[in-house]
Amino acid sequence: MNNFVYYNPTQLIFGKGQLSMLKEKAQQLGTTVLMVYGGGSIKRSGLYDKILALLSDAGCRVLELPGVEPNPRLSTVKKGIDICRQEGVDWILAVGGGSVIDASKAVAVGVPYEGDVWDFYSRKATPNGALPLGTVLTLAATGSEMNRGSVITNWDTQEKHGASTTFPTFSILDPENTFTVPRDQTIYGMSDILSHVFEQYFTHTTEIPLQTRFAESIMKTVIENAERVLANPEDYDARANILYCGTMALNGTLPVGVTTDWATHSIEHAVSAVYDIPHGGGLAIIFPKWMRYVYRENVSRFVRFATEVWNVDPTGKTDDEVALEGIAATEAFFARIGAPTRLADYQIGEEKLQVMAEKATPFGPIGNFKQLHSEDVAQILRMAL
Amino acid sequence: MNNFVYYNPTQLIFGKGQLSMLKEKAQQLGTTVLMVYGGGSIKRSGLYDKILALLSDAGCRVLELPGVEPNPRLSTVKKGIDICRQEGVDWILAVGGGSVIDASKAVAVGVPYEGDVWDFYSRKATPNGALPLGTVLTLAATGSEMNRGSVITNWDTQEKHGASTTFPTFSILDPENTFTVPRDQTIYGMSDILSHVFEQYFTHTTEIPLQTRFAESIMKTVIENAERVLANPEDYDARANILYCGTMALNGTLPVGVTTDWATHSIEHAVSAVYDIPHGGGLAIIFPKWMRYVYRENVSRFVRFATEVWNVDPTGKTDDEVALEGIAATEAFFARIGAPTRLADYQIGEEKLQVMAEKATPFGPIGNFKQLHSEDVAQILRMAL
Repeated sequence: MNNFVYYNPTQLIFGKGQLSMLKEKAQQLGTTVLMVYGGGSIKRSGLYDKILALLSDAGCRVLELPGVEPNPRLSTVKKGIDICRQEGVDWILAVGGGSVIDASKAVAVGVPYEGDVWDFYSRKATPNGALPLGTVLTLAATGSEMNRGSVITNWDTQEKHGASTTFPTFSILDPENTFTVPRDQTIYGMSDILSHVFEQYFTHTTEIPLQTRFAESIMKTVIENAERVLANPEDYDARANILYCGTMALNGTLPVGVTTDWATHSIEHAVSAVYDIPHGGGLAIIFPKWMRYVYRENVSRFVRFATEVWNVDPTGKTDDEVALEGIAATEAFFARIGAPTRLADYQIGEEKLQVMAEKATPFGPIGNFKQLHSEDVAQILRMAL
Repeated sequence: MNNFVYYNPTQLIFGKGQLSMLKEKAQQLGTTVLMVYGGGSIKRSGLYDKILALLSDAGCRVLELPGVEPNPRLSTVKKGIDICRQEGVDWILAVGGGSVIDASKAVAVGVPYEGDVWDFYSRKATPNGALPLGTVLTLAATGSEMNRGSVITNWDTQEKHGASTTFPTFSILDPENTFTVPRDQTIYGMSDILSHVFEQYFTHTTEIPLQTRFAESIMKTVIENAERVLANPEDYDARANILYCGTMALNGTLPVGVTTDWATHSIEHAVSAVYDIPHGGGLAIIFPKWMRYVYRENVSRFVRFATEVWNVDPTGKTDDEVALEGIAATEAFFARIGAPTRLADYQIGEEKLQVMAEKATPFGPIGNFKQLHSEDVAQILRMAL
């Protein structure tokens, strides 16, 4: 186990009807709030009206930043920063999924910063202070509701980068608010959750039995609830289990003491910076190919993955065969739940493959399980065509 | 899954040599510090000198409250409160195991409270404000380093009660600081950790797959590292795994959305309030008896426990048989690592059995898996004679 520091001060408010706690939270954080959201889904579901009523009860003046994109854009973030500065906003309420929360985090750290907020994402500066942020999560996926990560896309430069920004003060997670998530978004969300676990599970770090078992616990729970939630989108317990897995997959619990990887996320960010495809869809395509490309670096970890997570029977098989069977099971799972499996599913061919390979490695090689240079990324992308 | 709120702002600083971070932490928390510790073990190990040097480097004036008892006493807590008030202490540093930390928490919440600090433990008041508290943990056991629980014994009334007090601001966990923990304390610590998991695992709450797996992950990890750490007390990785399990077993992760039990802890508190026996020893004795007394309330949970945690093969057996085999495996494990298995191991007979049964239920029946009245407690204690 490596040395580590763990810290996570977000208050997680989970369950049916927990939205009612928003009033009390709002009263603690201030009277002028910027409400950030995406498309119109929260208006159709009625969540928008409920939240406005609660904020009004709390005596808040509400400003709005609607229209945050699925891959949230720097230009949108800057609009939010301007509103906060002009209107003296006290705190931000993100209502939506990871994109809305990530954009809100960027606004929160951008307001007190004199330079360009993109500096945080291009690694030129680190945030020092932020407006308080609360979230009402509507999608099980990114874990952004309980970490300080934020991923923003700069369309001027076709770059998509992550930064460490600020923890939400509180996050309200009502599984019922995910009942209306469309089927494809539900699938992408589950792919995203599993991918987060993969990034933190495939490692050369030894003596991490508890971290390993926690990761396997999340994977098994997502897998056993995935088809259930797709069969009945209003299955409260299945939605709750997936929602809780999404948070635990990326709230800092899994990586303690572990050298994590994150190459596949860099590759996917490069793909969606160029083609604007859904993050979870991109991950479902690329991860199994990454696995095939790297598994020989530590076959025993992939053997464990195959036997523990996918119940592969190792009897009479070589380690290589068991490992490959686990990877095939991963691919089969993604196919079974209806996730995309090839870049061709998004009409992506090899035209910009080299561009994406370069974009995936802007600060040098990526990944720790196997260090990948742009030529490695190109090979993985070619496997995914 | 039940609704829940999770919040835990303690910064966990884990690993070899992490004590060096104490200086920076001290500089953040103030110049006058009360250092709380137990017997002389931290002086023998050299930890005491290292800490004093770091606090001196940080420019701190150090006051001391030594001699905290294994079951920390109200009288000691009051001494600490007096020192803090007289000397204008800014923050408290607990150096030791759960007893030292629990006593320090009581001091921390007692200082700003005008009434008797015992009010928090007798449920007459709830804390409102506390001095900041840091900890340097030397024993894997109670989890007190990352929660707000505190258990104090009042010898005037022979009562031992827990209260919700305050979270440590930071906790430094270096597995090397547990190398010198004596064999019996190591055993009690592991019994305590497993008992914490049992209290949160045996439940009637359904649809808690991730919580269930997390609990099983901790149990399996403790079990597989227990004999290793006893065979070689300086096995860094084994000590690290046990230490991390201790924290995760009681930092609020396991009970989210779950109706937990905690009857066995109440019973043990009653026993050690009367006989002053080690908490972990008492738990190792009582828990398997509690299991036998209650398992029929939800046999399937005990079947899962037997098969998942103890690898009991269920083939051709009734659920009852499988459940009982799991309980027997628990007893055998405690015996194998050298934990006490009967009250007689502490020369406790039936003389005060009724007194203890009454003391275990001062606020009415205890437990949720099966509600226990004083006569149930008496029966469980009788099974443990």
